[in-house]
Amino acid sequence: MTNGHPRELTLSCPLPLRDHPTVQMAHGGGGRLMQELIEGLFLPGFAATPDVPIPHDSALLNVGREQLAFTTDSYVVTPLFFPGGDIGKLAVCGTVNDLAMAGAKPLYLSAGFILEEGLPIDTLRRVVESMRQAADEAGVRIVTGDTKVVDRGRGDGMYINTAGIGWIGPRTDIRPGRVEPGDAVVVSGDLGRHGIAVMSVREGLEFAGAPESDCAPLHELVETLLAAGGDVHCLRDLTRGGLAAALNEIARHAEVGIELEEAAIPVCEGVRSACELLGLDPLYAANEGRLVAFCPAEATEEVLHLMRAHRRAENPAAIGLVVQSHPGVVELQSPFGGDRILDLLSGEQMPRIC
Amino acid sequence: MTNGHPRELTLSCPLPLRDHPTVQMAHGGGGRLMQELIEGLFLPGFAATPDVPIPHDSALLNVGREQLAFTTDSYVVTPLFFPGGDIGKLAVCGTVNDLAMAGAKPLYLSAGFILEEGLPIDTLRRVVESMRQAADEAGVRIVTGDTKVVDRGRGDGMYINTAGIGWIGPRTDIRPGRVEPGDAVVVSGDLGRHGIAVMSVREGLEFAGAPESDCAPLHELVETLLAAGGDVHCLRDLTRGGLAAALNEIARHAEVGIELEEAAIPVCEGVRSACELLGLDPLYAANEGRLVAFCPAEATEEVLHLMRAHRRAENPAAIGLVVQSHPGVVELQSPFGGDRILDLLSGEQMPRIC
Repeated sequence: MTNGHPRELTLSCPLPLRDHPTVQMAHGGGGRLMQELIEGLFLPGFAATPDVPIPHDSALLNVGREQLAFTTDSYVVTPLFFPGGDIGKLAVCGTVNDLAMAGAKPLYLSAGFILEEGLPIDTLRRVVESMRQAADEAGVRIVTGDTKVVDRGRGDGMYINTAGIGWIGPRTDIRPGRVEPGDAVVVSGDLGRHGIAVMSVREGLEFAGAPESDCAPLHELVETLLAAGGDVHCLRDLTRGGLAAALNEIARHAEVGIELEEAAIPVCEGVRSACELLGLDPLYAANEGRLVAFCPAEATEEVLHLMRAHRRAENPAAIGLVVQSHPGVVELQSPFGGDRILDLLSGEQMPRIC
Repeated sequence: MTNGHPRELTLSCPLPLRDHPTVQMAHGGGGRLMQELIEGLFLPGFAATPDVPIPHDSALLNVGREQLAFTTDSYVVTPLFFPGGDIGKLAVCGTVNDLAMAGAKPLYLSAGFILEEGLPIDTLRRVVESMRQAADEAGVRIVTGDTKVVDRGRGDGMYINTAGIGWIGPRTDIRPGRVEPGDAVVVSGDLGRHGIAVMSVREGLEFAGAPESDCAPLHELVETLLAAGGDVHCLRDLTRGGLAAALNEIARHAEVGIELEEAAIPVCEGVRSACELLGLDPLYAANEGRLVAFCPAEATEEVLHLMRAHRRAENPAAIGLVVQSHPGVVELQSPFGGDRILDLLSGEQMPRIC
């Protein structure tokens, strides 16, 4: 996921970073504090120039005669191993997915390791093996890397950064700016598995039907959606902050409203139970193998049909519509009548989930 | 600096990783233990396929009709600010330089931040400002990023990863494989300033003439060397492990010997004094704005002439020759007669220098 937001966005008042003179856990949580850090500090600091297009999950770059997608993510998940995956699989899939969300074919990854003194070499070996498997499965190659070691007590086993390069075909145009009123909002599967899998093991919860992480590469699913010639306007993978964070960001960038039908949003029984137990909301829970697609309403059935036939989608569903009214705001229509706003959390409900 | 070494290199016996079941500080030090980690774990683990060329400071990649350089480095330097630079300037210059060493024009960087809870926002702001200045100076754009926050006591203020993309012109061919017997070994300036600047401030040493870090972007110097049409075979920036690590790596990859004249190696007075005080060897000290160039002996004067006229070189010098004998070994001829081998350190003399 990139830090990028369009430059013309202005800070909300009062100047938010004033409230927190030091970094809080929530600054990394995918919610409002992270948004403030990005828009109040990183963007003005790095001063993107106008000829870099508005970034989304990847930056879109022209290099010579080719158009590339370029993205980076660091991974600090704890614990390193969790049901359905580990930090290595996550680091490969996360970056592959960010490239895929730009409609790019993922090609090459870098891998930067920050190891804590005392980490068992066998743990590192298992993670590297997992990265290789994930890279093989995603058809990408890890071609460059770096290793740093920090003193005991200055890390947490290991942190991994991956950056990725993908190639974008000449007719591909998938980006938040194309989302428009009338578009359908379709999710590729039931929500919250990754976040709940990590939280469950962290909290020592084990119960029948406890979910595994959905961590998986999504580029083939994207390829299938695009190859069918269906008109997909925008794709976003639902990571930190979950569905709520992704939709709020897109509503804000595209200056549209989004209306969701709560009853249509797929959440599996295991996630629902764990959320009740842990006091969490699945709409804010992280996913690492789910995307949301925006497409013209008339393409909805075709998109759902393609998803249902694909191994990387599971219980896909059309969950709402893009509207002209209330730009920047995501509304949730309850099955019992009445609307509520699905806002960004200011903090975060699940730290260090990825 | 990439982790990449050619796959055909075999492990030395006995299997080295057995000696250390856990990660040691020295695994990140640019010496023999890091080499063992790379060749014993990362390379077999990631299993580079034969159509990826032998990597050097950057991986060389074909994307569509263009040839790119791609590289990554994480930065864990302590302290975050030191004489002549800070972690942000280092993160930009280090990646720019790795691209430049492949003869690439650096274009785009990513920036991944791992922030420790409690880091003053103003510290982050200063580092971001420094990255922007360094990027402006290097003519690159930071186009994508990521922020993670780890709990207090699980980091050290901040760690930064940068990855970079550069463009390689069709006639550029700068790589370790081109180094051959008869080549001259030329350094672009006096050695050890960065390592000693960081160590001095860390050890609380302040003395007249204490060196500042040489941290600087080197792409313009490389451009100048290449534009003059001089035949440069290989370039390497002298980071972790200093001159000794860089030359040992190249001697090993290119299967050549290297003979250095100790008296010709430039070291400034401040570095020499500090090294005596701290018990360090400047030939193993890190630089962040120095490169070594390999060129045909007859081009030596031209290369030195170009360097002397360039603001990014300082006291450049021809320090030795590539020879056919003792492949893989770097020898140092003492001014008092007698040779010694300039070996890789197994550990490291300066942890967390970059």
